[in-house]
Amino acid sequence: MSRGGANRETNSTEPRLSRASVGRLSLYLRRLEGLLGEGITKVSSGDLGEALGVTDAQVRKDLAYLGSLGHPGIGYPIQELVSAIRRALGIDREWLAALAGVGNLARALLRYRGFPQQGFRIVALFDTDPAKIGQQVEGLTIHGVGQIPEVIAATGAELGVLTVPVEGAQAVADMLVAAGIRGVLNFAPTVLRLPVNVSLVSVDLAVQLEQLAFLVQMASHD
Amino acid sequence: MSRGGANRETNSTEPRLSRASVGRLSLYLRRLEGLLGEGITKVSSGDLGEALGVTDAQVRKDLAYLGSLGHPGIGYPIQELVSAIRRALGIDREWLAALAGVGNLARALLRYRGFPQQGFRIVALFDTDPAKIGQQVEGLTIHGVGQIPEVIAATGAELGVLTVPVEGAQAVADMLVAAGIRGVLNFAPTVLRLPVNVSLVSVDLAVQLEQLAFLVQMASHD
Repeated sequence: MSRGGANRETNSTEPRLSRASVGRLSLYLRRLEGLLGEGITKVSSGDLGEALGVTDAQVRKDLAYLGSLGHPGIGYPIQELVSAIRRALGIDREWLAALAGVGNLARALLRYRGFPQQGFRIVALFDTDPAKIGQQVEGLTIHGVGQIPEVIAATGAELGVLTVPVEGAQAVADMLVAAGIRGVLNFAPTVLRLPVNVSLVSVDLAVQLEQLAFLVQMASHD
Repeated sequence: MSRGGANRETNSTEPRLSRASVGRLSLYLRRLEGLLGEGITKVSSGDLGEALGVTDAQVRKDLAYLGSLGHPGIGYPIQELVSAIRRALGIDREWLAALAGVGNLARALLRYRGFPQQGFRIVALFDTDPAKIGQQVEGLTIHGVGQIPEVIAATGAELGVLTVPVEGAQAVADMLVAAGIRGVLNFAPTVLRLPVNVSLVSVDLAVQLEQLAFLVQMASHD
């Protein structure tokens, strides 16, 4: 399993869809929602793949996982495909998330339209800085980390978004997990240890730039 | 090749190291630099892997790519390993980057210590908003996108970081590429079309949350 910069780390058994397939389904979903917005109702696997740089065969294979939705010569009904992908990804319902560490990255995420559009709603904010506690950001009050148990219970947040400095990441993650959080999206550039029943996706932004530098270097050696 | 949320997309020939290996090398590097900071000079593959949840065998396989650095029973000399990893990743030198779209995410990235620590320096800022052009952020002046050619030429920036809204992403990417940028780190949740000689790493933050939701859903089905 990849341990790359923005990787999926799970301690549970391997899901039925590969990480690459899940990533592609997310991209198909973006594209299909864009087409729906343009009033288009059907799409062929070739057209869908072409827009994303994925082969026709790969698109058909990925979509076959969703059941028999396509019709030869007619293509896929976009609305049904969108519903099927959202169901497969587990985003055919709303997910409530709590965010810890209210800095610039947190403010960017709070204003990121893609989250509510895809059914993710940030419902609680936490910070350790006494100067921030009690402040309002995007309509939400910043709570101290001591209030994690009661605020998580009151809001029903299931996911945690960690935008804290490295030093505090594990401690805050532990508090979120103790409060019942089932998955953590970690932006702190450190390795978190979580119980086996808690899922983890880590995004290390420096790793992303390192991967880019590596690719540029390789391209210039070809 | 993965087209996931934070994926590597390259049109050039496949590099010798897999994306997963590159990701792990980045994580080893973080850990090794941490150990050096604690005054530790040698590490075994087992200890290194244990801290990161990677098997001993995988660590040895990844590090074998760097040449014969380890000594049985003694372990790896950390300083040499750090140098070798930085060389393999192409970050044994400084990379200059230009950032386009100066919102909250950009401000978070500009203050992100991990970038300069790993040899990435943001040397130019661009925005389309007339109210922002001419402002200073973290010691850098925000330029209009019309100045991309001259500013890229003057600063020698090789990488572009795109934190613009979806609507403007392709146009700004095209301008950066025309100005000589060799790789793009894209945060806009859209698919960019770049020439074959320009590398692309995309980070779609909603895709990351979708992957997490998918994992949480799968874990609860087990």
